[in-house]
Amino acid sequence: MAGAKSKKNAPVILVTNDDGVMAPGILNLVEAVKGLGKIVVVAPDKPQSGMGHAITIGSPLRLQQVHLSDGMDAWSCTGTPVDCVKLAVDKVLKRKPDLCISGINHGANHSINVIYSGTMSAAIEASIENIPSIGFSLLDYSMEADFTMSRKYARIIVETILKRKPDRHLCLNVNFPAVDDSLVNGIKICRQAYAKFKEDFDERKDPAGRKYYWLSGEFVNYDKGKDTDVWALANNYVSVVPVQFDLTNYVLKSKLEKTFKP
Amino acid sequence: MAGAKSKKNAPVILVTNDDGVMAPGILNLVEAVKGLGKIVVVAPDKPQSGMGHAITIGSPLRLQQVHLSDGMDAWSCTGTPVDCVKLAVDKVLKRKPDLCISGINHGANHSINVIYSGTMSAAIEASIENIPSIGFSLLDYSMEADFTMSRKYARIIVETILKRKPDRHLCLNVNFPAVDDSLVNGIKICRQAYAKFKEDFDERKDPAGRKYYWLSGEFVNYDKGKDTDVWALANNYVSVVPVQFDLTNYVLKSKLEKTFKP
Repeated sequence: MAGAKSKKNAPVILVTNDDGVMAPGILNLVEAVKGLGKIVVVAPDKPQSGMGHAITIGSPLRLQQVHLSDGMDAWSCTGTPVDCVKLAVDKVLKRKPDLCISGINHGANHSINVIYSGTMSAAIEASIENIPSIGFSLLDYSMEADFTMSRKYARIIVETILKRKPDRHLCLNVNFPAVDDSLVNGIKICRQAYAKFKEDFDERKDPAGRKYYWLSGEFVNYDKGKDTDVWALANNYVSVVPVQFDLTNYVLKSKLEKTFKP
Repeated sequence: MAGAKSKKNAPVILVTNDDGVMAPGILNLVEAVKGLGKIVVVAPDKPQSGMGHAITIGSPLRLQQVHLSDGMDAWSCTGTPVDCVKLAVDKVLKRKPDLCISGINHGANHSINVIYSGTMSAAIEASIENIPSIGFSLLDYSMEADFTMSRKYARIIVETILKRKPDRHLCLNVNFPAVDDSLVNGIKICRQAYAKFKEDFDERKDPAGRKYYWLSGEFVNYDKGKDTDVWALANNYVSVVPVQFDLTNYVLKSKLEKTFKP
């Protein structure tokens, strides 16, 4: 077992998130994997939800040493979750970690949310660098969310992945249903559902009479498959979607090759 | 031909970008598709390169009517490229456009850059909504870049797509080599190369002696395939990669189903 290795050979586990270094979720993730390796925390200095795969290119970044509320050393970074991973590898660790874990996000990152999620973008960034990675999210937006069950399953998944021969560019999107441990049916490997927010901007007027808009909307599942993450979560499974960064649509590629001939 | 339809039935073409509504690239894209439909421009009020699929969730958005330098009406939006597409559909057009085009980006968006690119994220956002979409990028970062060849090929591609029976969730990532029209070998349908920046942060000290870091790096192609966008561009083809938003890694899904059993 990886956790039983000597400290010298212990795997290096980079921990990040998108809710910021002081969010309860990251503290719970650190707690979940204690003893499984050498843990290094590099996370944004402020909430970065919905930042997707944004990177900072027009301004410099800073790192600052801080302490989590359990006293553990951590690095606070002024950039996005993706910046945190890049900077952690190049300037904090000065090597690739053996695993990068991100979260535990306060709120769902199933279905199409994987694309908007800073939590998952950090994990995807690591996988591009061939660092095995896992993003974790709990279907509870509250800062007072109960992470007990999430911690248990996060540890099981991390232990399992550390024991495997590394898969090339492994990246997992893990979501936890917001239910008590006793109700969980287990871990289910899924595909990403075609489910998304149906947007409807809330139009308001400021005191000067000028319009402004708040993004709001209703979540709709258009995907009836029982092999999706949305189905799994609705049925009290911990959903695990393996994620890739090759966005090529190979089916459409074949079709278009007949239309466009060089 | 779509452009020959009566004005009433002309396709509605939404134009956006990530370099901002005043960038020369968007003006060239509008010029490229003139006559092919009813053109509506909704683009960010400032450069948003590297914003990836970021959305604005913690603050409101504004829209302002502006004029492009050719006098055309346009909407300037305070949000990200993805916000622009969402707001355009819900509040400007109040319907889905027949096509969404994004760019022409000042700089490459081939290979892994598709993930960081605001230009491509706008196109991907449209395709999630089942609006056919195309992102265009020229391999020249200069604000004085010559878009002559790009305009010609952008028009050919848009005309071809408008003539086809719409493909579900069609999204194309088009890159133009920075060469003269006479040197272009044609349009090539490709897959996304595994090529990326090898990061190396530039560490500096501010006047107070505190460290800060600039993201910098060297672009490296690790992919030797002749079917990639990077190969096509190096060989003076216009590269077209069909893009999808289902990030599920189905190969890894099958493997992991044996490891994790519910």
